[in-house]
Amino acid sequence: MTERTDYHIGGTPPETPGNDAAAGPWPATTVVGSRQPRIDAYERVSGTAVYPHDVSLPGMLHGAILRCPHAHARVLAVDTAAAEKMPGVAAVITAATPGADIPWYERDGGFASTLFDPHCRHQGEEVAAVAAETPLQAVDAIRAIRVTYEELPFVVDDTAALAPGAPAIHDGGNLIGEPRVRSRGDIAAGFAEAEVVVEGVYRTSCQIHAPMEPHGSVARWDGNRLTVWDSTQGVYDVQERLAAALELPRSSVRVIGPYMGGGFGSKLETGKYTVIATLLARMTARPVKIFLPREDCFTSTGNRPANTMTIKIGAKADGTLTAIEYASSGSGGAYFGDAGTGALPAYLYQVANLHAIDTTVHTNAGKARPMRAPGVPQAAWALEQAMDELAAKLGLDPLELRLRNIPATLQAGPGLPFTSQHLRECLVKGAEAFGWAEAVARPPDEGHLRRGVGLAAGMWFYSGGPPSTVVVKLHADGSANLNMGASDIGCGTKTWAAMIVAEELGVPLEQIQVEHADTATTQYATSSGGSKTVPSDSPAVLAAARSVKHQLIGFAAEQLGVPADDLVYADLALTSRSDPSKTLKVTEIGMLGRRGVVVGTGYREPNPEGSFTAPTCAQFCEVEVDTRTGGLRILRFLGAHDSGRVLNRLTFDNQVFGGMAMGIGLGVTEERVLDRQTGRMVNANLHDYKIPTMLDVAGDHACLPIDEPDHAFNTTGAKGLGEPATIPTAAAVGNAVARALGVRISDAPLTPRRILDALAAQRKEA
Amino acid sequence: MTERTDYHIGGTPPETPGNDAAAGPWPATTVVGSRQPRIDAYERVSGTAVYPHDVSLPGMLHGAILRCPHAHARVLAVDTAAAEKMPGVAAVITAATPGADIPWYERDGGFASTLFDPHCRHQGEEVAAVAAETPLQAVDAIRAIRVTYEELPFVVDDTAALAPGAPAIHDGGNLIGEPRVRSRGDIAAGFAEAEVVVEGVYRTSCQIHAPMEPHGSVARWDGNRLTVWDSTQGVYDVQERLAAALELPRSSVRVIGPYMGGGFGSKLETGKYTVIATLLARMTARPVKIFLPREDCFTSTGNRPANTMTIKIGAKADGTLTAIEYASSGSGGAYFGDAGTGALPAYLYQVANLHAIDTTVHTNAGKARPMRAPGVPQAAWALEQAMDELAAKLGLDPLELRLRNIPATLQAGPGLPFTSQHLRECLVKGAEAFGWAEAVARPPDEGHLRRGVGLAAGMWFYSGGPPSTVVVKLHADGSANLNMGASDIGCGTKTWAAMIVAEELGVPLEQIQVEHADTATTQYATSSGGSKTVPSDSPAVLAAARSVKHQLIGFAAEQLGVPADDLVYADLALTSRSDPSKTLKVTEIGMLGRRGVVVGTGYREPNPEGSFTAPTCAQFCEVEVDTRTGGLRILRFLGAHDSGRVLNRLTFDNQVFGGMAMGIGLGVTEERVLDRQTGRMVNANLHDYKIPTMLDVAGDHACLPIDEPDHAFNTTGAKGLGEPATIPTAAAVGNAVARALGVRISDAPLTPRRILDALAAQRKEA
Repeated sequence: MTERTDYHIGGTPPETPGNDAAAGPWPATTVVGSRQPRIDAYERVSGTAVYPHDVSLPGMLHGAILRCPHAHARVLAVDTAAAEKMPGVAAVITAATPGADIPWYERDGGFASTLFDPHCRHQGEEVAAVAAETPLQAVDAIRAIRVTYEELPFVVDDTAALAPGAPAIHDGGNLIGEPRVRSRGDIAAGFAEAEVVVEGVYRTSCQIHAPMEPHGSVARWDGNRLTVWDSTQGVYDVQERLAAALELPRSSVRVIGPYMGGGFGSKLETGKYTVIATLLARMTARPVKIFLPREDCFTSTGNRPANTMTIKIGAKADGTLTAIEYASSGSGGAYFGDAGTGALPAYLYQVANLHAIDTTVHTNAGKARPMRAPGVPQAAWALEQAMDELAAKLGLDPLELRLRNIPATLQAGPGLPFTSQHLRECLVKGAEAFGWAEAVARPPDEGHLRRGVGLAAGMWFYSGGPPSTVVVKLHADGSANLNMGASDIGCGTKTWAAMIVAEELGVPLEQIQVEHADTATTQYATSSGGSKTVPSDSPAVLAAARSVKHQLIGFAAEQLGVPADDLVYADLALTSRSDPSKTLKVTEIGMLGRRGVVVGTGYREPNPEGSFTAPTCAQFCEVEVDTRTGGLRILRFLGAHDSGRVLNRLTFDNQVFGGMAMGIGLGVTEERVLDRQTGRMVNANLHDYKIPTMLDVAGDHACLPIDEPDHAFNTTGAKGLGEPATIPTAAAVGNAVARALGVRISDAPLTPRRILDALAAQRKEA
Repeated sequence: MTERTDYHIGGTPPETPGNDAAAGPWPATTVVGSRQPRIDAYERVSGTAVYPHDVSLPGMLHGAILRCPHAHARVLAVDTAAAEKMPGVAAVITAATPGADIPWYERDGGFASTLFDPHCRHQGEEVAAVAAETPLQAVDAIRAIRVTYEELPFVVDDTAALAPGAPAIHDGGNLIGEPRVRSRGDIAAGFAEAEVVVEGVYRTSCQIHAPMEPHGSVARWDGNRLTVWDSTQGVYDVQERLAAALELPRSSVRVIGPYMGGGFGSKLETGKYTVIATLLARMTARPVKIFLPREDCFTSTGNRPANTMTIKIGAKADGTLTAIEYASSGSGGAYFGDAGTGALPAYLYQVANLHAIDTTVHTNAGKARPMRAPGVPQAAWALEQAMDELAAKLGLDPLELRLRNIPATLQAGPGLPFTSQHLRECLVKGAEAFGWAEAVARPPDEGHLRRGVGLAAGMWFYSGGPPSTVVVKLHADGSANLNMGASDIGCGTKTWAAMIVAEELGVPLEQIQVEHADTATTQYATSSGGSKTVPSDSPAVLAAARSVKHQLIGFAAEQLGVPADDLVYADLALTSRSDPSKTLKVTEIGMLGRRGVVVGTGYREPNPEGSFTAPTCAQFCEVEVDTRTGGLRILRFLGAHDSGRVLNRLTFDNQVFGGMAMGIGLGVTEERVLDRQTGRMVNANLHDYKIPTMLDVAGDHACLPIDEPDHAFNTTGAKGLGEPATIPTAAAVGNAVARALGVRISDAPLTPRRILDALAAQRKEA
């Protein structure tokens, strides 16, 4: 799951000027923290940005993959004779093709399958592939491949998968690993101490990542060197995986992904389609492009698993929590996937006695992959609704209940101090900005349109850290290039990185060009995921810019004949403190002119030991429910977020509103439906699978950053934001609906059907 | 011209581990110095390498340029109405188009013209341009443009250009700058002291660079950011020029040129075609490709000017030179071009009394541009043939005469010591390997086929130096990326650079990937020209590799718990001297694994002050002349070259043989012919302009490196080779022909016509 116990990696890096701890925390800023549109906005909106999906190479072939239509089957025979003779077909590959028997490992290193594994463990497994002159010729050809399957018994239900006699998906039973237990104190004593106890079972549905750009790659060989354009969240991960699969040195594998149309976690892994594209390209000596049809993205590129969460909370009459007991189960799918959710109940609130257990099982369905705060929005759906139930039982305002249980430390082991933690500010300032007190005081609506407000809090457990290397290159005319490995998966990475250089060196933002996400020409970064790109890479950007500044100061000191520490750098100029007549523009530094550029390299320093970094948040919303139709409108949302320093106020809003939209999807509209008769997904398309549209998420939304740099954490003081932004959303909607209707619906999404069912049950009881 | 008086630039760079002078000269090598095929050979020969000429972008338009057909004319009117309506035409640009009035400066900064200057000073000046859907539509459209010219009097002859009343090509007369004088001692006293004097007038013809890949560019705008693929010898020069012309920050201009099909000096300047492509791309909001037809390359992209050289040499009876008087004239063409040749007679031999004057004039012809050792092969044609005349008059072997006049210092100012200089070894070892003594002792041929041997020496005056920055990135699996700015203009830059990394770090050559020549993603280098890429950039590559090694040693020392200076690095492993059981493979270094990569940055250090670096050479050849046809066959050639350390023995051969081929062109086949009636070039095509073919240059050739690292010069000890390789070639052929025939032909090229004319004159005299 998401929690880091190995968050401190690294050691002492060699001293470089850019990594000078003595440079201390960042002073007051002018560019950083302002609202800046994306530096690549023109390219993105004009269509000139070349996403991997747009890559078109001379002589390029198009690939298509034949996938197993069954939930569980064994491939007995594959007849490609007809396909091979189809017009435009250049190559057909199956498990029998020499070189295609590539073992496929999970990200944790365990063996999972082979590239075209004859044992198909879910609908959508790869059986064969074709490269042809046109995309439609490729599709025609895979339809002409005749496959003989032996259909096998299947299971798509979590509980059924653990029942005796359930179909075996892998050797060794359907449990994925051992159930994970988080435990402290004495749970029985905690409940004995409680004056009030609430219990409940909450469920969420399986949500699909569904990024705008489908999954896919373009592969080209030059001799034994491979170039791959991939829609990925991490080019270096893909490089490492491809180098291993194809037995090449990493330097022979170039992975490029400068633009990509979203991933939300589903593009953290290397896809089999990428390796298939490289093999077809090698067989045909031509570039090959494979982008998945949307249906294949739905079945085969991951999901946020459905969870069933049982929670019991005990508290004293004053609201002090005494115990939480929590059990969560979910399916990782047919391969290794983590459906655990226990971190949030374990750590969001101060509670001495805890027992939380996560069980993850295999089913015959597409595997789970990390999806924006994996596990945590589900846990919030349970925990934060249970907290509201508890508040109601205690007669406390839900805000007040939460304020009485703010955690003092991360309650793991002996307790780790937070480098910074502003959950209280998120709740208090958020409530004030939202007008919480007024809203809860308002009398209930009388008619068929019922409004209600709700809040929920959240915490995120993945802080980021090394490794990250960044190079800043200052040109002799004072303009700059920034070179970093991180992917910009839509979050504005290029823009905040350029803003840091602009801030530190005084180069105007429009004179900074960012190169990134290319294993051959850009620096190293870990994948963009876990809300760690900003906290991992921003200190490296700052260090690289400081290295440039350090070198410029050295050159200028020599040129002006003054000691380096006598020079002040500001606005692309250096001036002597002791004799302000001695001044030099950066563009007048002779050594810069002679060298053409000055190159500064920055590394991400290790995180501090013995502490923990956790962004926190609170979201508040108001909804209106139509009791005649079950329709739910989001009227307004406010997100109060502590993610340390705000680098770009505009992308901060973007992230928060984007996270809310995705949380509304989890809470209100999205649900993967598997047919229990066939094990197939029946809504694997964007018509039947309900991603929230603009009309579903529109409202009077606001974003309130708690802009407190966390300098105990890193040099820029920035923490993650992307995942926290979606953590409390669904739960806040759930609480608002419960307040609006006077009845709690424990299962997400809150479809009209579920709302009408709940209202019917309510009327029946009344 | 070529001589450097400012060869020392720079100052003290900041201390970085990689630039550690204490690392000292390079020890014995295993990879460096071996024969290694190009690391990109597969791409080059298979056609997968994408040269700028191969770049094809989605939506790309094709440009064509309308050029003035007259030697001298004024554009009175341009009517583009018909062209604009032609099928496929997307844009037409002329001097009247808004934004096209861009001033055009010479490389020395002087104003020369405007982009579409109505004053056309030579055949081939740019008048208008078109962008269309296909290349042929663009050509059709420029043919439909109606231009009204006022034809002006023209001059294409150097001498006529200086005569009173000659057509004025620019304001201020047709002399380009002041004649350049090199002078020392007392020339009159020197000749008074002489016991033997020879005099002669030697001429060379105008030679065209004619690289395989024509000149051209592809331009694409993304908002206000520009990307240009250019067939250039220096991406940073093009970046600087485009940024200035288009008033953009340099970081907004990305110039890419990873492959290029030769330049020989003609691609050191930015072409107007490049700017025109950027303007057409901006007008149409589509990428635009302009590659010049071969005819335009002949008229408008430079040449090695024709020279007339008068030389007088005095010597004592023992062969000691007492005086050299030298005068050279040539045309720079219609714009600034240097036709000077005086360096070689001034510096090749020890002579106390010297007077050398270079005069360069404007004519109505395409401008001169630096061409492989600009000026020096012409000077060698004169000097080295005059030396043979002198040897004959003295009754000395030509080899012996030269050995008696080896220079002790560079005879400029008080005299500068050479960092190393092995002219004597070139002559002695070359003669030995060639069998010079035996060859000259052989009696003359009797029949119509006359064989003869000849030798000539050479020196090159451009040593290279800073700036250069290089980054080496070592991956956690021990493979590496090398990132440098230099263009690989065909000389094997990528290969020797990878060999240095392989040597220093022990990474296998095939696991090193080189990225280069991209202003956005690669490091800074000056243009590849002047034989300075190796001596300028190889020390930076070594410094970057050493920086990586230094960091690895630091990490390993910490991991093993030993002092850094106790560790020995060899074969990608580190071992303790004091306790060899303490050892670590590079791939086992934890910090490398955690960081993903280690990045080392290297800078080129300044050259030493108060000395001069000059590669030297001697070439020996044997020819056979058919006295019936005037046909000339090259039987064998041997080049003995001192270029310091040999990095790659195979590319060393390639460079020497390539230089010889080009020198054979100058001496035997190549000649631009301008029609004196029209001022137009009459052989502007590869059929009528005689580039030597394989049959013209084939023979029993050998290459003898004087492999002496010049560690007084730089850390790798390598000096330049590309230009020296072509310096003595034509002169050696001239001397061999004179020996074969007993008559000296003073004008190059030695065409059958000139040979037959000389034989006829010889018979007349006899």
